[in-house]
Amino acid sequence: MPDPKTKNHPKKDEKIIVAEIVSIGTELLLGDIINTNAVFISQKLAALGINCYYHSTVGDNPERINHTLTKALLRSDIVITSGGLGPTVDDVTVASIAETIKRPLVFDSKLLIPIRKYFQKRKVPMPNSVKKQSYIPKGSMTIENKFGTAAGLIMAYNSKLIIALPGPPSELVPMFTEKVMPYLKLKLGNIASLKTRTIKILGLSEGFINEQVKTLLKLKGKTRMGIYIKPGGEVNLKIMSKGSGKDNQINDIERVIIKKFGPNIYGFDNDEIEHVVGNLLRNRKKTIAIAESCTGGLISSMITDINGSSDYFLGSVVAYNNNIKINQLKVNAEILKKNGAVSCPVAKEMASNVKNMFKTDLSIAVTGIAGPTGGTKTKPVGLVFISVASNKTLCTKKFLFSGTRRDIKLKTAKAALFMLLQVLKGYGLFKLS
Amino acid sequence: MPDPKTKNHPKKDEKIIVAEIVSIGTELLLGDIINTNAVFISQKLAALGINCYYHSTVGDNPERINHTLTKALLRSDIVITSGGLGPTVDDVTVASIAETIKRPLVFDSKLLIPIRKYFQKRKVPMPNSVKKQSYIPKGSMTIENKFGTAAGLIMAYNSKLIIALPGPPSELVPMFTEKVMPYLKLKLGNIASLKTRTIKILGLSEGFINEQVKTLLKLKGKTRMGIYIKPGGEVNLKIMSKGSGKDNQINDIERVIIKKFGPNIYGFDNDEIEHVVGNLLRNRKKTIAIAESCTGGLISSMITDINGSSDYFLGSVVAYNNNIKINQLKVNAEILKKNGAVSCPVAKEMASNVKNMFKTDLSIAVTGIAGPTGGTKTKPVGLVFISVASNKTLCTKKFLFSGTRRDIKLKTAKAALFMLLQVLKGYGLFKLS
Repeated sequence: MPDPKTKNHPKKDEKIIVAEIVSIGTELLLGDIINTNAVFISQKLAALGINCYYHSTVGDNPERINHTLTKALLRSDIVITSGGLGPTVDDVTVASIAETIKRPLVFDSKLLIPIRKYFQKRKVPMPNSVKKQSYIPKGSMTIENKFGTAAGLIMAYNSKLIIALPGPPSELVPMFTEKVMPYLKLKLGNIASLKTRTIKILGLSEGFINEQVKTLLKLKGKTRMGIYIKPGGEVNLKIMSKGSGKDNQINDIERVIIKKFGPNIYGFDNDEIEHVVGNLLRNRKKTIAIAESCTGGLISSMITDINGSSDYFLGSVVAYNNNIKINQLKVNAEILKKNGAVSCPVAKEMASNVKNMFKTDLSIAVTGIAGPTGGTKTKPVGLVFISVASNKTLCTKKFLFSGTRRDIKLKTAKAALFMLLQVLKGYGLFKLS
Repeated sequence: MPDPKTKNHPKKDEKIIVAEIVSIGTELLLGDIINTNAVFISQKLAALGINCYYHSTVGDNPERINHTLTKALLRSDIVITSGGLGPTVDDVTVASIAETIKRPLVFDSKLLIPIRKYFQKRKVPMPNSVKKQSYIPKGSMTIENKFGTAAGLIMAYNSKLIIALPGPPSELVPMFTEKVMPYLKLKLGNIASLKTRTIKILGLSEGFINEQVKTLLKLKGKTRMGIYIKPGGEVNLKIMSKGSGKDNQINDIERVIIKKFGPNIYGFDNDEIEHVVGNLLRNRKKTIAIAESCTGGLISSMITDINGSSDYFLGSVVAYNNNIKINQLKVNAEILKKNGAVSCPVAKEMASNVKNMFKTDLSIAVTGIAGPTGGTKTKPVGLVFISVASNKTLCTKKFLFSGTRRDIKLKTAKAALFMLLQVLKGYGLFKLS
């Protein structure tokens, strides 16, 4: 931990700062909730260039919290706790920290003000128990909590820092982003921040990508690369570089990756396929409609997860039942009967018809077997046909996806959005029949 | 840990067994993946009646793995590791365990057979590096991995057990369920298993429920209760009881909860609202269609996540754009113009019309403002109207939801499915206008 006095005399060498995340809550140990706080804090620490060597999780038990904190303070510069700041008898984090660092708990009257307001706003009498939340270890700095009653705490202890945050992510995330990150940046000064670039790929198998980049995956030293399998058949390659002036190395590797997988790269870093496609539709002033069968509304729901999607998305027909395909989507009953609902001609009809009915520039249609039941020898579970129609083309492609029902739905949805992206970009791939 | 020799002489007192989960992988410390393995294993340990006091996460670093395992073996009876069993240089778990428990690594030729098969099946030459996966600490039992090349390991060490499993959940979950759980049950014998009952509530606020059950939440001893906030405005109450013959206490508390919240309880334990509603529709031989605006297809997607939903779900219209509401759903243009798209009359029209068009017994319609933009003073973000139509009733209710765009979509979807449940059960609540 840098001594504040030396702040004006930074060393040439970049400092190595080690943080540790201690998640507190018996519900975590019972598997009742997923520890998304640890994921969030880890990402932010990595972005700040702070190393994280350990995560620990411990229940609402003073002795075990004390034991865990003591160990963490021996091996790390910064210890960040989440959870156990509430008003109930189970919330023992503050008292346990005070015990660990041998500080008395003192009453801080200003902490009662937001708590009182919180209850006034909700027109509920303030329970006596919440007053407990105004007692903090002597010498603590407090962090305002806009979405709850428990303040966060920052405590200096010997040359270390302890940061205590509430458990609900809706409270922890804004507190960490708005207060803790700026504080750490200011306090730590010139640390070697981690630069990353994530390259997002659809339409290629993990095995194929892995084989193509295996030399890069073995890189050691300041710049490294990892491969991550994401839900829905997506693969991400993440290039990480530590220290200043290393951008070139990231750019060099990125160029190699783009050369290898160009047409299958749909985006970078925080891009999502529904976001990338949406921006392109908006920029080109194009509208879209969707006809969904096996995805049951998932593609439309993903598109409408994006704020402002009403600029380009007009609507969909979820034609789950064959009668709906015939009566609402006007799929030719003869064609449907002859080929079956899961077939290339039906996918084409669905795409053409929804585009005409909804008067859009583009459309997507999907029909398939999501399983686990309903498959046959000639039409197995995972068989999916996807059509994309524009004013110029009608592309259809056959897929065979694996996994659970939800896996197959999500793989279909991402593949459909990726096909739309290809059509928008004019690659004209995927022509079938 | 029970001595196998004493297995035929179980003590009257139930044993207390403590396990610890050690998750291994630098990607976890970087926040690149969510640790779902720890959640899964925790749930299974709780169900077996095995206590879990600590989770630890450590990177692919032999020294720190060794340090973590040594500590875990001091304080817990069973140490379960996940990750780091692969063939790459980063995979150091097996060597680190061998180092910690001072066992040599020995070659086990039978482990090469499934690895060779795995590559033959994929028609890819077997890389030399995978041979590393056939070296295991002397005296280990192996656990077959049907979905990957890394075998799991079980090692006895002094009176403790170490269980090492691969990181990918698609490999770990079946290995734990099919092999590790039966092994632990047999090995540990008469342990005090944890019985739980989860009661699932929709349509009531957390604050209200909390206030109503605060005495029960303070229960100490063998039977306790916890309150959990779930996404989409759902609250779960979980009653946990340790030891045999405690069913009565769970039943007693359950009765109190049912008396308090009866009409708002939609299900128990593993029930999901889309599952409960689906079963009821199937049993009553009723069909349903949906007209979605602000949820953009999410309700339909949730319904079709259930295998066999084609028995009752015929399809939907996602009418995102007002022209689609008028042209496809035949909403009266005058009514839409006069009241706006987000209004009670439009929700009613949407529900009636989709039911008639799709010729179903029931329908749901939702219209609202998912935000974050698009709100006005009179129609703020979060304002939603939900209609449910049957052959007998047309109920509409107004809601004001809070949160992000995705929160509002999910809250709307769950509230709509819950309203449908109420109509199916004939409670006839929610009559508005």
